[in-house]
Amino acid sequence: MSERIREILLDQEVRTPPVCELMLFLAARAANVEMTVAPGMKKGCVVVGDRFSDATLAYQAWGRGLPRAEVEAACVFAAGGFAPDLTFLLDLDPERGMERLAKAGRPRDRIEEAGIGFHRRVREGYLELSRENPERFTVLDGAVSAASLDKQILQRALEVIRDRNGGQLQ
Amino acid sequence: MSERIREILLDQEVRTPPVCELMLFLAARAANVEMTVAPGMKKGCVVVGDRFSDATLAYQAWGRGLPRAEVEAACVFAAGGFAPDLTFLLDLDPERGMERLAKAGRPRDRIEEAGIGFHRRVREGYLELSRENPERFTVLDGAVSAASLDKQILQRALEVIRDRNGGQLQ
Repeated sequence: MSERIREILLDQEVRTPPVCELMLFLAARAANVEMTVAPGMKKGCVVVGDRFSDATLAYQAWGRGLPRAEVEAACVFAAGGFAPDLTFLLDLDPERGMERLAKAGRPRDRIEEAGIGFHRRVREGYLELSRENPERFTVLDGAVSAASLDKQILQRALEVIRDRNGGQLQ
Repeated sequence: MSERIREILLDQEVRTPPVCELMLFLAARAANVEMTVAPGMKKGCVVVGDRFSDATLAYQAWGRGLPRAEVEAACVFAAGGFAPDLTFLLDLDPERGMERLAKAGRPRDRIEEAGIGFHRRVREGYLELSRENPERFTVLDGAVSAASLDKQILQRALEVIRDRNGGQLQ
């Protein structure tokens, strides 16, 4: 399901108005929650995800200019009551991000193609969300090596898991 | 855009949780509003549509059991401030509707396949919405001939257009 929605979202050929784009992301989110997040939580797993409601707020409210309150309400509904306990923001200047993309040598999708102003607003959105939720967010410098990021993320995640379990990892 | 979303929605093979289904319908709605309704209204046309927010409420809130307030808020957002002035509800007992579908001889889609209980709840939703909005709704007996329905709809639509224009049709 999510893959079929993703195809539409990233297609350069299809015109996608901002509210339509929002609803497509939320449809994929709702499917992901129902099929992966909720069953994982029910089994007592640590569920790790790449982008959730914060991404939708940063891209659709800050990036596309949709009203934050409406985007937020729709995100809460689509997430079915689930919200992350811990969020890692890998922060990078959009110009440097674009350079990395250019080096990767593959064609850009519709959202990567949206222009530097759009990506600057998205970054500002993420940073604002991290300031509003300092206990949940860990902001990391995305310019350092992948190995260093791995280490920092694992260390912080283990800290939080241990705290929750009264000092135990399991 | 709407066609590609519709393909996913009606596909029997793809599992679609209720909130995901809602968001897909609203994505198609938002695209339809942006590309057809809003430009039509701007030109001063009478815009005629087949299903809008009432359908989403009847199918997703009454039919699928999603909470009405959240569905309604998301519908208002997706419709971008547009709402119909006049709504025709062609009411038919779901059993008779199913008989008609069977006679049509084509395979049923995922939503037609949802079972008689689902279609009874959807009908109840539509009828409740018509009771809550008596000035906007005209409920017609869907069992009469298409020619008779045509005549009733055209007569009522012309009445409303004339009223709006101080007795003039144009």
